[in-house]
Amino acid sequence: MLEVVLGIDIGGTNTVFGLVDRNGNILTSDSIPTTGDDSAESFFERVFKSFNEKFELVKDKYELKGIGIGAPNANYYKGTIEHAPNLAWGFVNVLDIIKQYTDLPAVLTNDANAAALGEMKFGAAKNMKHFIQITLGTGLGSGIVVNGDLVYGHDGFAGEMGHVRIDKNNRVCGCGRKGCLETVASATGIKRTVYELLAKMNDKSSLRDIPFNKLTSKNIHEAAVKGDVVALEAFEYTGKVLGKAISDATAYFSPEAVILFGGLANAGDMIFEPVKRHMEKNMMDLFKNKVQVLMSGLPSGDAAILGASALIWHELNGEK
Amino acid sequence: MLEVVLGIDIGGTNTVFGLVDRNGNILTSDSIPTTGDDSAESFFERVFKSFNEKFELVKDKYELKGIGIGAPNANYYKGTIEHAPNLAWGFVNVLDIIKQYTDLPAVLTNDANAAALGEMKFGAAKNMKHFIQITLGTGLGSGIVVNGDLVYGHDGFAGEMGHVRIDKNNRVCGCGRKGCLETVASATGIKRTVYELLAKMNDKSSLRDIPFNKLTSKNIHEAAVKGDVVALEAFEYTGKVLGKAISDATAYFSPEAVILFGGLANAGDMIFEPVKRHMEKNMMDLFKNKVQVLMSGLPSGDAAILGASALIWHELNGEK
Repeated sequence: MLEVVLGIDIGGTNTVFGLVDRNGNILTSDSIPTTGDDSAESFFERVFKSFNEKFELVKDKYELKGIGIGAPNANYYKGTIEHAPNLAWGFVNVLDIIKQYTDLPAVLTNDANAAALGEMKFGAAKNMKHFIQITLGTGLGSGIVVNGDLVYGHDGFAGEMGHVRIDKNNRVCGCGRKGCLETVASATGIKRTVYELLAKMNDKSSLRDIPFNKLTSKNIHEAAVKGDVVALEAFEYTGKVLGKAISDATAYFSPEAVILFGGLANAGDMIFEPVKRHMEKNMMDLFKNKVQVLMSGLPSGDAAILGASALIWHELNGEK
Repeated sequence: MLEVVLGIDIGGTNTVFGLVDRNGNILTSDSIPTTGDDSAESFFERVFKSFNEKFELVKDKYELKGIGIGAPNANYYKGTIEHAPNLAWGFVNVLDIIKQYTDLPAVLTNDANAAALGEMKFGAAKNMKHFIQITLGTGLGSGIVVNGDLVYGHDGFAGEMGHVRIDKNNRVCGCGRKGCLETVASATGIKRTVYELLAKMNDKSSLRDIPFNKLTSKNIHEAAVKGDVVALEAFEYTGKVLGKAISDATAYFSPEAVILFGGLANAGDMIFEPVKRHMEKNMMDLFKNKVQVLMSGLPSGDAAILGASALIWHELNGEK
């Protein structure tokens, strides 16, 4: 029988889960709406009902070894999800809840940390022991690996690179403070930058026809490819701020690589080029030309499941 | 026989070394001038000649288990000292050189990392697995511990918190860049701040009688204690910049404590109070009131030897 794990990624809207083998092959995958108004108890009832029905059909082929869960605001040490903004669950102990459904080893961590382990096991960070994974989505999520293991800190909440302060601006952040890195370096951040530039510059721009709530980092990328000066300037500024922040993170961690993932990273060279240029420009001599900036090595649709399953494989392999 | 290690701390002017037992008792200690014009080879010849002469007298009592060395610009992975500004040695492999004198296990790291291990084994960070040690001396040195081990990064040079950039000023830094944290938060940094304030403010100040090259953080502390407004403002500004930088470092590491050591830390509450206040003010809600700011638990005269010996005990105990 093939040894497999169940990887579960809980998102604000949808939850995806599937069986993954030791080599990162996704053997089954499924998704259900998360519907955050539910209680966590009834949510996991739905997940396991759906999973068990399908697993019945394949249980002769696969030996299930454990369960890995990635979720927003999740705490690895405690097995809790704590007041995730898009889930109406408050403070819940997930590992306690799922004990009703399984005796298998189960672990939980936040989605950014799971993504980093996914890169280490199956993606762009294979064989690396020191790297930073950055997801440029609605916010900036980061998972930091030192000596082959995640940096959790003493309370399990370390690795919040998105909330390092960058001083130069004072944009209000979702965390309640001002000037956090993710207010600039994220898919939402570049939208804010575009709007700031549309106010500041007089140049024609196709982006002047798109309302804020419709604007996406994809729109901005498409405009930039066509030479839209506002869009180009927005990428330049985003790359400058993120590149500089990576040079600071390097002083702390001296990583072998920084891996970019998520909506804004999909803009490819348009964002990678200014990030690398400003990173090197700001780097201490000691670290110049040492840190690679890489695109995620995980297919974006599968990254969440692969991250969640990497988490439990990491544990089962005794690497933790 | 009592098991002991030899701790060696190589400074720009003096090198101290001594025998230290597993509990951090310094049994013998000695010092020789480093005289950086010497070659590294002749320097270590002098160290071992001096050490062996004295060790002859006590070798019935002590069993020497290993050698730990702290030095500027030292690389743990390679056993090298690389272009330390105050040593005229260029690039030298220290562990290769000392093989002529001993077959015992030997390790080398930079002085800031050794200091952090000293705190973990014998000082204020006992039983901690996640903390940051900051030495506020000529510059800002830092040793960062995650999961009970030093953060070395992939090249051995991680932990350079002194060279994180703070944007707000553009003071020239020894590293060749501008605006590094240590240009403000260090014994030299507060001198620079005093001179800036003496230019900016019109208030009377006893510090107006002291030339830059004679000014010390001790002078500034003494003036502040007497209510000198320039000195008080210098401590406030230094605490603000350092407190804010610690709040950023917390987003990365979520440490249990930050430990301050060195000339400027000796100002006690005068620096600790503004550091703590600005740290909490800038902290993400998630981390508020969780991070202790502590005075070093090592006697300042012995800290260097204790750090170097903690490094080799850490290794011998298999904690590395």
